Amino acid sequence: MSSAGVADDRRYVLSLGCPDRTGIVAKISTFLADVGGWIVEAAYHADPDTGWFFTRQAVRASSVGMSIEELRTRFEAVAAEIGPETEWALEDSGQRKRVVILVSKEAHCLHDLLGRAAGGELPAEVSAVVGNHKSLEPVARAHGIRFHHVEFPKDPAERGPAFEEVRSLVDSYDPHAVVLARFMQVLPEELCEHWAGKALNIHHSFLPSFVGARPYHQAFARGVKLIGATCHYVTAELDAGPIVEQDVIRVDHSDEVADMVRQGRDIEKLVLSRGLRWHLEDRVLVHGKKTVVFS
Amino acid sequence: MSSAGVADDRRYVLSLGCPDRTGIVAKISTFLADVGGWIVEAAYHADPDTGWFFTRQAVRASSVGMSIEELRTRFEAVAAEIGPETEWALEDSGQRKRVVILVSKEAHCLHDLLGRAAGGELPAEVSAVVGNHKSLEPVARAHGIRFHHVEFPKDPAERGPAFEEVRSLVDSYDPHAVVLARFMQVLPEELCEHWAGKALNIHHSFLPSFVGARPYHQAFARGVKLIGATCHYVTAELDAGPIVEQDVIRVDHSDEVADMVRQGRDIEKLVLSRGLRWHLEDRVLVHGKKTVVFS
Amino acid sequence: MSSAGVADDRRYVLSLGCPDRTGIVAKISTFLADVGGWIVEAAYHADPDTGWFFTRQAVRASSVGMSIEELRTRFEAVAAEIGPETEWALEDSGQRKRVVILVSKEAHCLHDLLGRAAGGELPAEVSAVVGNHKSLEPVARAHGIRFHHVEFPKDPAERGPAFEEVRSLVDSYDPHAVVLARFMQVLPEELCEHWAGKALNIHHSFLPSFVGARPYHQAFARGVKLIGATCHYVTAELDAGPIVEQDVIRVDHSDEVADMVRQGRDIEKLVLSRGLRWHLEDRVLVHGKKTVVFS
Amino acid sequence: MSSAGVADDRRYVLSLGCPDRTGIVAKISTFLADVGGWIVEAAYHADPDTGWFFTRQAVRASSVGMSIEELRTRFEAVAAEIGPETEWALEDSGQRKRVVILVSKEAHCLHDLLGRAAGGELPAEVSAVVGNHKSLEPVARAHGIRFHHVEFPKDPAERGPAFEEVRSLVDSYDPHAVVLARFMQVLPEELCEHWAGKALNIHHSFLPSFVGARPYHQAFARGVKLIGATCHYVTAELDAGPIVEQDVIRVDHSDEVADMVRQGRDIEKLVLSRGLRWHLEDRVLVHGKKTVVFS
Repeated sequence: MSSAGVADDRRYVLSLGCPDRTGIVAKISTFLADVGGWIVEAAYHADPDTGWFFTRQAVRASSVGMSIEELRTRFEAVAAEIGPETEWALEDSGQRKRVVILVSKEAHCLHDLLGRAAGGELPAEVSAVVGNHKSLEPVARAHGIRFHHVEFPKDPAERGPAFEEVRSLVDSYDPHAVVLARFMQVLPEELCEHWAGKALNIHHSFLPSFVGARPYHQAFARGVKLIGATCHYVTAELDAGPIVEQDVIRVDHSDEVADMVRQGRDIEKLVLSRGLRWHLEDRVLVHGKKTVVFS
Repeated sequence: MSSAGVADDRRYVLSLGCPDRTGIVAKISTFLADVGGWIVEAAYHADPDTGWFFTRQAVRASSVGMSIEELRTRFEAVAAEIGPETEWALEDSGQRKRVVILVSKEAHCLHDLLGRAAGGELPAEVSAVVGNHKSLEPVARAHGIRFHHVEFPKDPAERGPAFEEVRSLVDSYDPHAVVLARFMQVLPEELCEHWAGKALNIHHSFLPSFVGARPYHQAFARGVKLIGATCHYVTAELDAGPIVEQDVIRVDHSDEVADMVRQGRDIEKLVLSRGLRWHLEDRVLVHGKKTVVFS
Repeated sequence: MSSAGVADDRRYVLSLGCPDRTGIVAKISTFLADVGGWIVEAAYHADPDTGWFFTRQAVRASSVGMSIEELRTRFEAVAAEIGPETEWALEDSGQRKRVVILVSKEAHCLHDLLGRAAGGELPAEVSAVVGNHKSLEPVARAHGIRFHHVEFPKDPAERGPAFEEVRSLVDSYDPHAVVLARFMQVLPEELCEHWAGKALNIHHSFLPSFVGARPYHQAFARGVKLIGATCHYVTAELDAGPIVEQDVIRVDHSDEVADMVRQGRDIEKLVLSRGLRWHLEDRVLVHGKKTVVFS
Repeated sequence: MSSAGVADDRRYVLSLGCPDRTGIVAKISTFLADVGGWIVEAAYHADPDTGWFFTRQAVRASSVGMSIEELRTRFEAVAAEIGPETEWALEDSGQRKRVVILVSKEAHCLHDLLGRAAGGELPAEVSAVVGNHKSLEPVARAHGIRFHHVEFPKDPAERGPAFEEVRSLVDSYDPHAVVLARFMQVLPEELCEHWAGKALNIHHSFLPSFVGARPYHQAFARGVKLIGATCHYVTAELDAGPIVEQDVIRVDHSDEVADMVRQGRDIEKLVLSRGLRWHLEDRVLVHGKKTVVFS
């Protein structure tokens, strides 16, 4: 996997999915060649299960003598020719993306994401942090990032207005990604739909094992020999959205729940940061309940 | 983890579990010192969750001036002193153990186990292979090992006599381990109880994910990014017995079910062979629904 | 990574490397579209370090209305147009490849490869096994495969004729791959050159650590916490050829050399079988001292 | 591995190494039982290669009716009885340890360690950060930790006084660990000896591969398929000290040096933080050029 985002490394990135048939690659690559596009990355996937075709191609922006807007306009004809079901996007890696992070009290994922953003590892700026507790406000402020506190009532039935406030706050930044960094609140169904394809959650288990609350306690009780974490898109069904990335770490009988919590944090950070980076670099194509990840 | 079984490496192995309290280690180690035992391996675990204590200790047989039978007799007094709930065993690694393997049509785990046994990697002899199909008979015969075919009726309700026959055949070898190497038959509850603590199954998923049939198909449908395998003791509840070992391998969107099956085989072989070796070397202590593995 | 080789899954596979410039993908994909090629796999790599471009594309043979020979003839014009330095191959996955395996006394890699070939995991037939000891003859024969014994003199300076005999034997099968499955003999320089790009070795360390003899002893002496294995193409410089695949396994202070040998075998088998499969499926493109692996 | 350091979890930790013989465990455990010690963790290792025996035992401080000083005094007799070469330490986990971190310009390991210390993951306080550049001063200050800048001359031959200043600064905190968190300066031999057994370095390769400068560039040039990191004690020979921990991550042909640098950072952070935690919890026993790690 190659890193985008270096100064002289501006790219136009095409991602596309459509029903598979002969000649799609030829159409796309002929188009890119015609506009002078120097391809630096190209990946394809033909899915025999669904009959769909997916591709991601990155060309040097400098090799194409036009703006991303003009390129998009021109590509419309190619997409139409490929077929009416074609889903595609053309992005300019030089246009910095925006991320809003939702948190509760757990600090490690927030620390990790802000550190990576500061170190240039994430091709995005963090626009704001929204928390249902105030405890992580200093972490955001230390990075010069705005923090919004939204009070959540104890009774889950009365949380509607709080979620409305979170929605307004988040949407005011028009983010490319909404990251639930151990937010610990189940989003209402309409919010899941509203943020479909851009809300990423980190769940602290190797899904589909240990859905829901206290997964490390569940893992301890079952006596598994590996624990894991899963980064997935948020959907209405709890912890059942399309999986972007997963990883695991070995544990044994001597690890108590507190040890699993500590070791699991390392995996949560890795899995969430990888999933978010791939999402921001347009490497993740969602189709149905699954993802194609051109990492 | 150290390998037992080398010619001049005969050991007496004590494994013990009991409610934890002060002085247990002192009692055991004083006993071992008194009989001249040169300890080559010692492992301990105090479980704060259950309040139990577990240990495994291996001494050079040559350093102890008595037979394993006499050592057992002498240790009875120590065990009694430790307390009435104490569970213990004293084994002589020089007494070769016996394994019976149950198979269906899948060859890879059988090939792997027989290859390891032949190469001296497993401290046991394979007494026999029992199959509900005849297709693996040549594999067993190529290693000079007896193969028994037991016909299973199509209707699950009529399989009682077949399981009875399997039970008689297996028990006739008085094995230390009964290995379900992709046997693909759910053992009746009474057989699970009869072989409690010595029947090991390999399940081709990372349990508790994808219990039951066709786990690779389930994994494919869910879009997980890692697939795994689990070696566990067989209990009456399907795929819910104490876990001995698990491992995983990375897959991605380009892997179809057939690819998962192929890659998963490698993990199944590794996980089953590790679990079986640890079981045969008395490294696995079962307590409730979990295991302590002194690997 | 997808598995080729299923009956109705015959493919024509193009692999190509050339100096990178605009329009290559368009040329290739237009050609493939023109002959009706239904692309089932496509991978690209543009190497900024060397300025070279690499691709591998697999199309359904049934979608192309001509033989592989005719397709090759037609592609010559495209390759010429791409440029004079272009290196390419067009293979028919329906034409079964041939493998010759060189062994010494260690059995595990031979067992593993023959088992995988028998189980349909390797898209090749094993034509013969050549050993400088007779001890593995029964293993080959059990699989119905011819075994040739070539006596090697003790004095390395006198081994020339033995290597000549090995060369003649191997070449008589015109193999697509010559696998040194723990052969333990350093090939003479001219043999390395003669078999350049098709002789694969498994070295039992994570190269470039522990080159040469007794790598597990070297690893033990250094106190590393992971041991590994490396599959690489054989070149005149010992253990320095282009690396195809590597993997590692965790060890600790309690692992003696014998334990490392045992655990290392599992990694050797995995790494060699993966490397060989990728080689046989034309997934490995060598450029200079490195490989591009479209796994 | 269990985490020490929870409030009601104060422990007395014995670590000991000596030439192996019969009865050592009995002597130690009888002593611990006599003072009422409730053992919560115990690990042993008998090394057949060196003939040495190693143990680490942790007892609940509350179960022993005396101070750590008194316990040490009493244990002296036991140690003497075990033999004159016996090396041992008795530590009180309730006495917070001190760490000094040496840095250059790379921020990620410093961020990670300070974040873990703040989050209670490391059983230590960070006393100070010493840098040969000023760029990381804000990172230390944001955590309320003192930062010392020591100017290093360009000419390596003139760096003696700078190293003297670093030594004085570090020693003024009397630290239990000196962490070279990507310090990028080779310590003079006498400083290595002065801090023997407490200076920990993170090297950004899987040693012994790629000793010295720019290991990711070396890894890229060799075309390895995994990159790694190594935490080791600093000794006079460059990157050759006893290894405490190592880990790796997979890379492929599409990863340029910049990608390896980015991915490698994650492994560096994990490996260094694990190694430091084990060191601080007295889990690492050095013997010769190797370590015993009771993790």
